[in-house]
Amino acid sequence: MPSSSRLELNPDRLLPGDPQQRRIARQLYEAVKELPVISPHGHVDPRILAEDVPFRDPAGLLISPDHYVTRLLHADGVSLHDLGVGRQALSEDEARRAWRHLCEHWKVFAGTPVRFWLEAELVEIFGVTLRPSAQTADTIFEQVTDCLGQNAYKPRALYDRFKVEVLTTTFDPCDDLSIYDMLFNDPTWAGKAIPAFRPDRYLELARPDWPKLVGQLGEAAGVDTGDYRGFLEALEQRRRFFVDHGATSADHSHFDARTDPLEAAEAGRIYRVALAGTANSDEAAAFRRHMMLEMARMSCEDGLAMTLHSGIRRNHHRPTEAVFGSDTGCDIPVGVEFTEALRPLLERYGTAAGFHLVVFTVDETVWSRELAPLAGFYPSVYVGVPWWFLDAPDAIRRFRSAVTETAGFFKTSGFVDDTRAFCSIPARHDMARRVDAGVLAGLVAEHRLNEEEAAEIAAALVTEQPRRAFKL
Amino acid sequence: MPSSSRLELNPDRLLPGDPQQRRIARQLYEAVKELPVISPHGHVDPRILAEDVPFRDPAGLLISPDHYVTRLLHADGVSLHDLGVGRQALSEDEARRAWRHLCEHWKVFAGTPVRFWLEAELVEIFGVTLRPSAQTADTIFEQVTDCLGQNAYKPRALYDRFKVEVLTTTFDPCDDLSIYDMLFNDPTWAGKAIPAFRPDRYLELARPDWPKLVGQLGEAAGVDTGDYRGFLEALEQRRRFFVDHGATSADHSHFDARTDPLEAAEAGRIYRVALAGTANSDEAAAFRRHMMLEMARMSCEDGLAMTLHSGIRRNHHRPTEAVFGSDTGCDIPVGVEFTEALRPLLERYGTAAGFHLVVFTVDETVWSRELAPLAGFYPSVYVGVPWWFLDAPDAIRRFRSAVTETAGFFKTSGFVDDTRAFCSIPARHDMARRVDAGVLAGLVAEHRLNEEEAAEIAAALVTEQPRRAFKL
Amino acid sequence: MPSSSRLELNPDRLLPGDPQQRRIARQLYEAVKELPVISPHGHVDPRILAEDVPFRDPAGLLISPDHYVTRLLHADGVSLHDLGVGRQALSEDEARRAWRHLCEHWKVFAGTPVRFWLEAELVEIFGVTLRPSAQTADTIFEQVTDCLGQNAYKPRALYDRFKVEVLTTTFDPCDDLSIYDMLFNDPTWAGKAIPAFRPDRYLELARPDWPKLVGQLGEAAGVDTGDYRGFLEALEQRRRFFVDHGATSADHSHFDARTDPLEAAEAGRIYRVALAGTANSDEAAAFRRHMMLEMARMSCEDGLAMTLHSGIRRNHHRPTEAVFGSDTGCDIPVGVEFTEALRPLLERYGTAAGFHLVVFTVDETVWSRELAPLAGFYPSVYVGVPWWFLDAPDAIRRFRSAVTETAGFFKTSGFVDDTRAFCSIPARHDMARRVDAGVLAGLVAEHRLNEEEAAEIAAALVTEQPRRAFKL
Repeated sequence: MPSSSRLELNPDRLLPGDPQQRRIARQLYEAVKELPVISPHGHVDPRILAEDVPFRDPAGLLISPDHYVTRLLHADGVSLHDLGVGRQALSEDEARRAWRHLCEHWKVFAGTPVRFWLEAELVEIFGVTLRPSAQTADTIFEQVTDCLGQNAYKPRALYDRFKVEVLTTTFDPCDDLSIYDMLFNDPTWAGKAIPAFRPDRYLELARPDWPKLVGQLGEAAGVDTGDYRGFLEALEQRRRFFVDHGATSADHSHFDARTDPLEAAEAGRIYRVALAGTANSDEAAAFRRHMMLEMARMSCEDGLAMTLHSGIRRNHHRPTEAVFGSDTGCDIPVGVEFTEALRPLLERYGTAAGFHLVVFTVDETVWSRELAPLAGFYPSVYVGVPWWFLDAPDAIRRFRSAVTETAGFFKTSGFVDDTRAFCSIPARHDMARRVDAGVLAGLVAEHRLNEEEAAEIAAALVTEQPRRAFKL
Repeated sequence: MPSSSRLELNPDRLLPGDPQQRRIARQLYEAVKELPVISPHGHVDPRILAEDVPFRDPAGLLISPDHYVTRLLHADGVSLHDLGVGRQALSEDEARRAWRHLCEHWKVFAGTPVRFWLEAELVEIFGVTLRPSAQTADTIFEQVTDCLGQNAYKPRALYDRFKVEVLTTTFDPCDDLSIYDMLFNDPTWAGKAIPAFRPDRYLELARPDWPKLVGQLGEAAGVDTGDYRGFLEALEQRRRFFVDHGATSADHSHFDARTDPLEAAEAGRIYRVALAGTANSDEAAAFRRHMMLEMARMSCEDGLAMTLHSGIRRNHHRPTEAVFGSDTGCDIPVGVEFTEALRPLLERYGTAAGFHLVVFTVDETVWSRELAPLAGFYPSVYVGVPWWFLDAPDAIRRFRSAVTETAGFFKTSGFVDDTRAFCSIPARHDMARRVDAGVLAGLVAEHRLNEEEAAEIAAALVTEQPRRAFKL
Repeated sequence: MPSSSRLELNPDRLLPGDPQQRRIARQLYEAVKELPVISPHGHVDPRILAEDVPFRDPAGLLISPDHYVTRLLHADGVSLHDLGVGRQALSEDEARRAWRHLCEHWKVFAGTPVRFWLEAELVEIFGVTLRPSAQTADTIFEQVTDCLGQNAYKPRALYDRFKVEVLTTTFDPCDDLSIYDMLFNDPTWAGKAIPAFRPDRYLELARPDWPKLVGQLGEAAGVDTGDYRGFLEALEQRRRFFVDHGATSADHSHFDARTDPLEAAEAGRIYRVALAGTANSDEAAAFRRHMMLEMARMSCEDGLAMTLHSGIRRNHHRPTEAVFGSDTGCDIPVGVEFTEALRPLLERYGTAAGFHLVVFTVDETVWSRELAPLAGFYPSVYVGVPWWFLDAPDAIRRFRSAVTETAGFFKTSGFVDDTRAFCSIPARHDMARRVDAGVLAGLVAEHRLNEEEAAEIAAALVTEQPRRAFKL
């Protein structure tokens, strides 16, 4: 077999090329590589763990739900439909065809972390030894399909094999979280899965469905949301409900990060006109920015860590959204501003005991300019580690370079996989561990840290830091 | 001769310092270094090839037309006049003095790509062996002057020696392109030179000369441009004329990248008031932003790749413009925004079959934040490689680092020399090949690519990618 | 003693990890490490040199005045009060407790330049051999305390030991600078300390105390500041007074960098309404932006180099300001724009003979996009080297990478320590020398510079460049 058709994972992958740094990095990595996976933010449906039904086919497991994968194939001319995006289960033929698309376009992943993740998944989970290509597509498809029929590849078996310590999934505030009740009450389930509170759409008054949404919110909370006070109370209720189901964080993703207070009377007025369907977009934005302060206040009260994921233009290509729905790979980042935006919130709550604000960004220009300086002063602020487009080796290095000198290591959040692709979880965390080991090795090689310290930090980044930032 | 006065090119220049990576990079570079030069965007006057008259003097060849060179000398106190900027040919004495300025201020180029280019030009083209300095200025001037009198240094001979496969030059839509007719009809010309369609000033209604310009456009197209419909038709006509002369791309450089549609009636109204000389600057900007959509539509119809070069404040120092004209080194970048700006255009044409939009920037903050995500979803979008202030080794490395993890290698454009300095073409392309070889070697050293893949990518970046992005 | 508790400085710290580059960097560094320290911008009170009284205690010397140190401790939960921020001298017990806080939270500095500075101060100045920790805090406190009682640790002795050639301190325009008279007239003082003119608050008309301030300015200048003409004359007078006391620069730090001219009549009108206390914030901003042009004009006349430090939101957390005052670590950067902002100023004065404009930023996105292109054209413009949050090894490397390819080395300012912490001066300059040596070694390793040139540049960056940019 020619070397180009073999698929192998080099044990030193992603470690520094320089021999001395590689040696140091290897030691650092060895000490953390087997530590459990803490996943404080993500989108894997816990139903797969509750039901523990075998995964259906390789495409539905590794392609369709992973917009990182479908995005790049689409950019190379493959239709999202053929990849199963936004569809129910594919037929076996369709799945096989989707798989062939992946393998035939394998080169588009060269240099991307998607390639690293997919290779790790194929080799480490499924024992694949062939490099994906037009020639090998069917063989690999069959090998993975064969695995999926075995007990060792059922979701819970993989959960154990992945050494997941906790798996967090964002949920709508109205969700009854019964899936977590099922898990808690299942004596055969020994893992830990928790929800995160994700109220975004209830804070976007300009949505056509918003009056209906707050009606549902009121119902779920058993509170009349006919006025602003009731709305706040309903949110407080649902947050407590989430806390009772194990939640430790509330996640917020809006276009900008502003936190401008309104007088209660004005907030109440906008709430009323929005219920009547006549709020304009300025009023809606003003209300949402005001609500960020309320969410921070609630976090101070109920202890949920507040996390921000700002600066994304969702569904940039509306024709794609119309056909395939959301989360199809056409969410595109925009510039974001935090220093001025977060000032009202931080002046009120930035030094409040126990308050945590973890700020993520896909606009890397704010790392050194805004986030590290904020986290380097406010006890509450943590810099979210690279996320989404930036959870990749070079980006993680740029992150550590930009943030560490101003905020150190201990005001960063620990890795967040943020994925819908269950099988990519171990590979993603492994990538972060390798790259951080390399970053630390570089500091050791330049005598900026000694090896003992570096080892402590490497361990802290995968254990203490996520636990601390997310209050796990 | 002391080593400091010898001028030599190290064969490993710009390759990584690390021995292992250098070894890999050398192999990658060796395999591409002799490949032909594809120049899909630039400003070299094809008249030099049509007429094939010997170049006049070293200053007029290597200094006056190259604002990269004159800019840094001006920043160190040399007057642009003394360097021949904006002037006709210099006398021999003036040329010699300009040359002395260059050599006496040689240290200002330390660490810049200009130094790399000039050294490569002096050594590889003219066989110079002396480092430029006050002491060596005259000797080098004479050596280069002597070369320029020889047949081997006439433009076509250099074109062949530079292994140029295609040389593209931007032209005004009204140009009769007769220079290309001359070349096509010249049986002794075996090269390939093509125009690119560059309609910028016809889309800037606030220019005082705009009514006159659209009159000329109408004449050139044989279409009455007295109304908006005629204007569109004239542009379509002239694009076809360019296509007939070999053009494959239309290039657009405006201050911002916005693409906001107007109703046809409103576009027509603004066109009328602009013809009457009474359009205000808001109307002019609105019309130009609307026209970007029209240019995209035309690209979908006639197949010209659409290229964008946004975010430059031209002629920042108006007193310099008043004396020396444009392109004198005082064009200064500004921040630019693409995600929101290009959304209307991409919603309409982003997935249109055959449409290509190649986006260049001198604001590197958008590489990871906007351009790579856009190119990683839209089949039409290509990320233009580093250009202008950024076509330099470190900037190219930052580019690959910022873009590759999100968009891979195959949604990037290939190198663009964008130069007015004919003799700098091979050195510029050589620089890109060396640096990309080093980038790829780094990925190999970290086991993120294998050597075979890296070799394929290195070759693709100098051949397939420019051909594909620019439809050559 | 276990290695983890020993505090030692590796002679190769901050030099590149790669063996070949380290060898080159070592040579470059060796040649500059003992050169005198030129400090053209900072905030150390020259009174300590005039009075030469022993420093009181380790906390008051190394913690309380250094917001780099207190900032990170505060972010880890230590109260600023306990660290002595904004207070007069601490009692011995309080000082010891503050010192324990520092040592117990030592790990928060891992990876930051603060750690590098503090270690260098402890080892090189005070001979400490123990790593700070809860266990060693008291021992180190006592060792440093013991030193401070000795003559060799009095301010002037340290000034000599630090090899300071010139120490610049920003001063209010109304200051009588008598402290410099004391020094000039002191036959036992052989050093050089000079003021820099810092008129910020006199240009901020929206300050409640502004009418009072300009009254004081008039008194100091002996000029009636009852109208705009008098105000200009008073500033001119005070600048001359500073020049007479050795000043070579005037420093300006405002929120943005705009320089928009007003008609004299409009400037006069705003001045009048501001005196009456009725100027609005738009008028105040317009006046301040106009005054930047006036300050540039005055710089052309009196020769003071004009320096800009823009883009900081001062006192981000007003509750902290209310209790502890300014400069307490909660100044947070914001995005900044220079290309458009400086255009009016540079069109007027950018090519004026002898004018120097040194532009600093904590928004690194403008390095390649705006500052390097401006400095690469305008003879007057110098790029200020990394400052504040960015005066750290990785940031300095990013700076050289972003700036050098467009502006070379000779349009950069040389290092600026900008510190209030006297004892950190040598460590800060040493850090810059080490990192620049590494950067230059990297260029040598890639054959982009030869070793002789690199040595010349390394020396120029610590001697000629600050002297040239700041006219020392």
